[in-house]
Amino acid sequence: MLVNGKQGNLISIRDRGLLYGDGVFRTFLATNGKVRHWPLHYQKLQHDCAALGISCPDVALLSAQLNDLLMQQPEGVVKLIVTRGEGSRGYTPPTRTESTIIWDVSPLPAYPAEWATHGIIARLCQFRLSHQPRLAGIKHLNRLENVLAAAELNDAQLKDEKFGEGLLLDAANNVIEGTRSNLFLVSQGKLVTPDLSRCGVAGVQRERVMAWAAQHSMPLQVRDVGLDEVMKADEVFVVNSVIGLWPVRELEQCRWTSFPVAARIRLFLDEQDAK
Amino acid sequence: MLVNGKQGNLISIRDRGLLYGDGVFRTFLATNGKVRHWPLHYQKLQHDCAALGISCPDVALLSAQLNDLLMQQPEGVVKLIVTRGEGSRGYTPPTRTESTIIWDVSPLPAYPAEWATHGIIARLCQFRLSHQPRLAGIKHLNRLENVLAAAELNDAQLKDEKFGEGLLLDAANNVIEGTRSNLFLVSQGKLVTPDLSRCGVAGVQRERVMAWAAQHSMPLQVRDVGLDEVMKADEVFVVNSVIGLWPVRELEQCRWTSFPVAARIRLFLDEQDAK
Repeated sequence: MLVNGKQGNLISIRDRGLLYGDGVFRTFLATNGKVRHWPLHYQKLQHDCAALGISCPDVALLSAQLNDLLMQQPEGVVKLIVTRGEGSRGYTPPTRTESTIIWDVSPLPAYPAEWATHGIIARLCQFRLSHQPRLAGIKHLNRLENVLAAAELNDAQLKDEKFGEGLLLDAANNVIEGTRSNLFLVSQGKLVTPDLSRCGVAGVQRERVMAWAAQHSMPLQVRDVGLDEVMKADEVFVVNSVIGLWPVRELEQCRWTSFPVAARIRLFLDEQDAK
Repeated sequence: MLVNGKQGNLISIRDRGLLYGDGVFRTFLATNGKVRHWPLHYQKLQHDCAALGISCPDVALLSAQLNDLLMQQPEGVVKLIVTRGEGSRGYTPPTRTESTIIWDVSPLPAYPAEWATHGIIARLCQFRLSHQPRLAGIKHLNRLENVLAAAELNDAQLKDEKFGEGLLLDAANNVIEGTRSNLFLVSQGKLVTPDLSRCGVAGVQRERVMAWAAQHSMPLQVRDVGLDEVMKADEVFVVNSVIGLWPVRELEQCRWTSFPVAARIRLFLDEQDAK
């Protein structure tokens, strides 16, 4: 664990990351001392910092810190947090602050291997995402909506049901994403993913799938998606940088048994990852 | 500064307060080693913890910690944060966690004294609050909306304009609150304050003003408020536990010069505070 370049696992209680969730983060995998798609993650970090007016640390500085980190912990889920730093009391962002840079590594998660090949059981969360265009798409530290949605899923798991992911709708009943993943449909030969201009988090893995579509001349639509459309889709799958790609085999009363497009995309992602 | 009952100003980078803004807080004044309206603040804390499923520390424990704190720092703005504590990776709230309790004291703010008596210049923020009924009213740590709104006000102040507060509307153009305060209107002999069931923070000072209305048989309405109504009101004022009560003397093209009801309420609040 590194805080501002030094070994440590503590930050100030006056850090705006704690006080207001005034910061952004990234999560990605490290294996054999290497991380996957660091340039893509840095690009997103830069975008998200700019959207909140947070000073984004230099890529050379972060890359050096990441190397230090991987020397000690070559394997795991890496989390990078950049907050606006400390400042005087009150919501107003100070005109000058030094961003706080936090690195942490957790053990690789142990998901059932068949979730990637045979799909997950997903469920619909009751919780609805709110519309906030100024924060939509950004992976910021205001994540109580995800916490409340995930809690719902957890309550269900305690009843011995096993859900790989919960799907989230917004207040207008558009399907937006998973509690911790982005969503894709395959429908009539097209790839469809929800528009994230009013809510949701636009992840790196989502961009990679979109890039796959462009490279393979598969029509891609980014737009509002209703629940009906998800239920009727030929394939449904969720992606993020830690889980990779999971097809959905069951969602409420719907069942899917084959995922040819999802399998092709997963193969592509895996091959890129192995490079 | 106290963290979990011990002197210190650091918390773990794995605390869910930092990772997800998964916590709640209170802010109030201490003068001469005493805090004002602690029972009301504890009641709100308890309510907000329950709304998020966070275990609320016992009042006896918190009161003892507060006493310790005030022995060292008898004067200032006291901030109490309670987070869900630490847990394993991921949004899902652990079934059992120990809440993190953080106390901090900042110097008393130096607002111009005439703001309380002659009123402030307020402005309308461009930023719009989102509707999230599950989080509305709660003083939680997801405060990026307030940060973005306050930043707007700050940008304006840099141009040599002096604003005491910024008023926030929601996406449906209802007037909701100030960036750090609750809003009241006096209109045709009635006291009106915005409904906070879809967004906003329901503060202790707002409750005290509502209690004043009940005690003084003044009709009170809690409902949606349009901007037109604010502009046409006989009096407009904002309240919070740190600023007390500030009438608004100027808002965009509107001017107010006398605040008889606001002055009566302020006197009542001050007298209660002095007890």
